[in-house]
Amino acid sequence: MATVIRIAIDCMGGDEGIPVTVPAAFAFAQRYADTHLLLVGLPEEIEQAVSVCAKRYPDVSSDRYSIVAATEVVTMDDPVEVALRRKKDSSMRVAAQAVKDGRADACISAGNTGAWMAISRYVLKTLFGIDRPAIASALPNQKGGTTTMLDLGANVDCTAEHLLQFAIMGTALAQAGDVNHSPSVGLLNIGEEVIKGNDIVKQAAELLRQSTLNFYGNVEGNDIFKGTVDVVVCDGFVGNVALKSAEGVARMMSVMVREEFSRNIFTKLLGLIAMPVLAKFRRRVDNRQYNGAALLGLRGVVIKSHGAADAVAFGCALERAREAVQTGLLKRTAEAIAKLTNSQVEAVSSTQSGDSE
Amino acid sequence: MATVIRIAIDCMGGDEGIPVTVPAAFAFAQRYADTHLLLVGLPEEIEQAVSVCAKRYPDVSSDRYSIVAATEVVTMDDPVEVALRRKKDSSMRVAAQAVKDGRADACISAGNTGAWMAISRYVLKTLFGIDRPAIASALPNQKGGTTTMLDLGANVDCTAEHLLQFAIMGTALAQAGDVNHSPSVGLLNIGEEVIKGNDIVKQAAELLRQSTLNFYGNVEGNDIFKGTVDVVVCDGFVGNVALKSAEGVARMMSVMVREEFSRNIFTKLLGLIAMPVLAKFRRRVDNRQYNGAALLGLRGVVIKSHGAADAVAFGCALERAREAVQTGLLKRTAEAIAKLTNSQVEAVSSTQSGDSE
Repeated sequence: MATVIRIAIDCMGGDEGIPVTVPAAFAFAQRYADTHLLLVGLPEEIEQAVSVCAKRYPDVSSDRYSIVAATEVVTMDDPVEVALRRKKDSSMRVAAQAVKDGRADACISAGNTGAWMAISRYVLKTLFGIDRPAIASALPNQKGGTTTMLDLGANVDCTAEHLLQFAIMGTALAQAGDVNHSPSVGLLNIGEEVIKGNDIVKQAAELLRQSTLNFYGNVEGNDIFKGTVDVVVCDGFVGNVALKSAEGVARMMSVMVREEFSRNIFTKLLGLIAMPVLAKFRRRVDNRQYNGAALLGLRGVVIKSHGAADAVAFGCALERAREAVQTGLLKRTAEAIAKLTNSQVEAVSSTQSGDSE
Repeated sequence: MATVIRIAIDCMGGDEGIPVTVPAAFAFAQRYADTHLLLVGLPEEIEQAVSVCAKRYPDVSSDRYSIVAATEVVTMDDPVEVALRRKKDSSMRVAAQAVKDGRADACISAGNTGAWMAISRYVLKTLFGIDRPAIASALPNQKGGTTTMLDLGANVDCTAEHLLQFAIMGTALAQAGDVNHSPSVGLLNIGEEVIKGNDIVKQAAELLRQSTLNFYGNVEGNDIFKGTVDVVVCDGFVGNVALKSAEGVARMMSVMVREEFSRNIFTKLLGLIAMPVLAKFRRRVDNRQYNGAALLGLRGVVIKSHGAADAVAFGCALERAREAVQTGLLKRTAEAIAKLTNSQVEAVSSTQSGDSE
């Protein structure tokens, strides 16, 4: 099987743009010989970067990538309306269109999240049965594996049905191609406190219990990193806050470790001696390796890289795109959703006809 | 000034109960000579623990504490209704009643959060102008200080007005007696994502902007631990998830540091050598020192300790109680709320009369 995985890269997106995206693309192409990259953006600028990278990565022959011109660039603070309506030839739009037209299997951008979500949704449309796309990411857990979490910020207000759809999409992502694996799903809730969750969460739990998903039950914030379940589902407001709180603590603790080892000459010396161990710790908590969120529920594989990603982090996001294509994420998600929709239609019609068969 | 601070302790609460609470109380009494402790619970069991502790802490004379009998105990999984209606002589109830009757200045429990909130609210009532009490705690931040965060789980659904009230209560708590200090307040929101916050958060931002509080604006999850603002306000669902996610990451990272240093003989040796530095790091991230959340908005100082607290952690929670009394938290909160209510009444009446003066 020598299928080529074609990825359309918005080279203009992110805090750095081309200086990060193009070198990352070449490094990635060198790592994975089964890929073809569409480098989308202002052609002169990309060509310049390509001529430098082509020398640095001689193994990546010129038939491994193509430059696809776009005349406009969505900036980090462009309002969604501007990105969508005024910049119709933006690199984001052209990248998404390449997937729509079947010229690419996946697209990726490190640009403005809101604009990327709106554009990819507008161009690709949602899968049948999905009301709202969601942002999903794999986070490291204490067990040494990852926990897939969604929604991380696309939808601030969700119904119970939306949360169920997120659970289905998250399950498909966490399966990663192994259809026999039935990832456990947890519903993010609050614990021992006064009232356990709001009405929407309670209704969602009911829907999840009735579904064919491997529903574990409610989980709390700490369970994300404990690895209690494979998939954690929540609305985008809660998910975004949880993710960023976690990032904040991780950064604070890394700073503290560094501070303690640079307090005086003795501790600095210790830090030097302990360097290999500390470096290993740093690698494990390095969030660059978890870069690359999936925008799930669209008729195409769409990946969002962190805006501040460097070439290493952007390369990890490219790997997410490749994995999603390779494991048939889209087909599996569509099938799971269709199954649910059918079973719901059946449930409704059997209720209506009074026939419980 | 030799005012004695009287704290009513629910000795039965928490995972361990008396074996933690009574020794912690004695250690605390030894540290702070200006305190008098009401040890509330099943008298025989408390007396037994007291006789042991009295020997261990000979400096704590018997006039520094009194045993207050309660015949019932609220368990960790008692439903709120049972705790409130069926166990009318519980140690929680008696501790709260001691504050109500003016026999104590503050009360504390490590028991069932929901029950403690319900009982203390029932016994003490809310301050004039406060619709709902909130749970607030000080969390460590990267700047070496603390960030006061609320609500951490008492209210899953909040209106914009509730969030404003939380901001006022949080400001009073963060002032810690220094009335000239005007703590900055951030409203927890999501960042660059598709839609910035829901309607309630947007309305709350408007109310906060109009208030006399030192409103910074929106903050994101990572700002809690960055120390961007002194007070972070959010609803109880979001706050609880953020707090527990943060705890989860902190635990994961501590485990990772330990794992890296126990990988082989060489790293273990390094770990031994680096012990003092690692111990210092561990002390800094030790969440026991941040134990003791305040139930704000009640007509009395009410503290909640973590259920799993050991004697060190419970002692820290006792310090929170002492601080709150010493700094006049209650009076300051009531005054701040009254000021707000008056200004709102004035605003409404001036709008109604068409008089903008």
